[in-house]
Amino acid sequence: MEKLDLVCETKLRVRFNEVDALRIVWHGHYVNYFEDGRQAFGRKYNLSYLDVFEHGFSTPIVEFHVNHKLPLTFGEEAIVKTKFINTPAAKIKFEYEIYNAETKALVATGYSIQVFCHKDTYALELNTPDFYQKWKEKWGVV
Amino acid sequence: MEKLDLVCETKLRVRFNEVDALRIVWHGHYVNYFEDGRQAFGRKYNLSYLDVFEHGFSTPIVEFHVNHKLPLTFGEEAIVKTKFINTPAAKIKFEYEIYNAETKALVATGYSIQVFCHKDTYALELNTPDFYQKWKEKWGVV
Amino acid sequence: MEKLDLVCETKLRVRFNEVDALRIVWHGHYVNYFEDGRQAFGRKYNLSYLDVFEHGFSTPIVEFHVNHKLPLTFGEEAIVKTKFINTPAAKIKFEYEIYNAETKALVATGYSIQVFCHKDTYALELNTPDFYQKWKEKWGVV
Amino acid sequence: MEKLDLVCETKLRVRFNEVDALRIVWHGHYVNYFEDGRQAFGRKYNLSYLDVFEHGFSTPIVEFHVNHKLPLTFGEEAIVKTKFINTPAAKIKFEYEIYNAETKALVATGYSIQVFCHKDTYALELNTPDFYQKWKEKWGVV
Repeated sequence: MEKLDLVCETKLRVRFNEVDALRIVWHGHYVNYFEDGRQAFGRKYNLSYLDVFEHGFSTPIVEFHVNHKLPLTFGEEAIVKTKFINTPAAKIKFEYEIYNAETKALVATGYSIQVFCHKDTYALELNTPDFYQKWKEKWGVV
Repeated sequence: MEKLDLVCETKLRVRFNEVDALRIVWHGHYVNYFEDGRQAFGRKYNLSYLDVFEHGFSTPIVEFHVNHKLPLTFGEEAIVKTKFINTPAAKIKFEYEIYNAETKALVATGYSIQVFCHKDTYALELNTPDFYQKWKEKWGVV
Repeated sequence: MEKLDLVCETKLRVRFNEVDALRIVWHGHYVNYFEDGRQAFGRKYNLSYLDVFEHGFSTPIVEFHVNHKLPLTFGEEAIVKTKFINTPAAKIKFEYEIYNAETKALVATGYSIQVFCHKDTYALELNTPDFYQKWKEKWGVV
Repeated sequence: MEKLDLVCETKLRVRFNEVDALRIVWHGHYVNYFEDGRQAFGRKYNLSYLDVFEHGFSTPIVEFHVNHKLPLTFGEEAIVKTKFINTPAAKIKFEYEIYNAETKALVATGYSIQVFCHKDTYALELNTPDFYQKWKEKWGVV
């Protein structure tokens, strides 16, 4: 049986204050765009910060990468495509693609990796937490 | 005996990403400039978030105002002058003046008002907390 | 004939990174919430930055005010209600109300005042620009 | 003759609003920390946005990477170490290390890559611009 990708698409609009003196979106705002994509994914697939927190964990980002292909400017809309990438480690990996909503051109790509920390002690959890294993099974990504 | 003003001056440099498409600092970044001024004041006079927190309170902002007189642009430096304004109420009030560090021109003015909330219950404290009364006495502002 | 208010309502969702160590939205992010409301108003009534820019003007903010009534926290949604306030001066004034989208409680109020500057010289225009007068007439606010 | 590294160290203090609900600096603020490091490097070695702009170029970021090792929290100070990495391509590469200023622990590492675009046309320049070649020679990095 073919596995389906877990993917979420989110639309956003470039804010006036996200554009810099060169009249293009300052690169740092893509962190927010990825965050928006990741949070929309979390709401769609029940893997939000609050879902994870209920199971006793926080999921800080330990690695973050962006490649910028084309600029975005004020008034433009963008699509953030957030894709879950399965890994055997006790980690959450997402890949991102941002498209210009009008021209469909690929604007940026990137990825993020999160780990599991016990919410009170901040201690790193090296084994895949039970709830995350079950979440994977539910969505057929194991 | 004349009372001395409680004032703190902080220098900051305009970041590239704080400048908008008009090549002036976007108005929203002045919130950060005031925050920088307030935190520097807190360090100088022992009234930081952490000092207040140790006494069981948080101090959320309930009122915030800015008047913009002149623009700042990338590469410029500014001075934030943060002045404590005494009030009989259980509040912390600061007035701010931002100057262009080179030309000495007044760039912006404003104020903020904070209240005291019990840190665990978030309940508003209507009476001046003891530690704050002592803080005022120590600095001669009562 | 009764005049209709020019009002725009925008929905937004609190981002994880907008919440501070007290687990409430940091006050500075309300500047973005108002900006979102103002830009949505501009799109609805053809008074966006780009519309104004086409007529040769930029409209920097000269005064900005917020009153905070209640906190917002991560995962909550808010409604920004942006209302145009007519004034005989060469200014654009908006009043804002932010509501908790679920409880309907009033979370914050505020206003902003913008002036007209010639986009190339940055010179302040003291008279109401023609295009703005016509915009007012079109929407019945004169 | 041994070549010297071009390195710049910048001190910064964690702002209250940079700390998230987990009471650690939200990962997105490291973009600003790297930006602060890069701008301090530019001022020290005359390779700032304004220097580059005078020669007819802008230098947008095309690749950006961060690895997070340890958290930072409110009130802590950090050292950003920004190091120029020479490359034969028409690119500017920096590597970053962020240290906890008190404990000296390594908090984060990363890098950024910038390209040269003609400031008016935004066209990508594939050859190393003359001024940049001379800059490299001046600082002995060729």
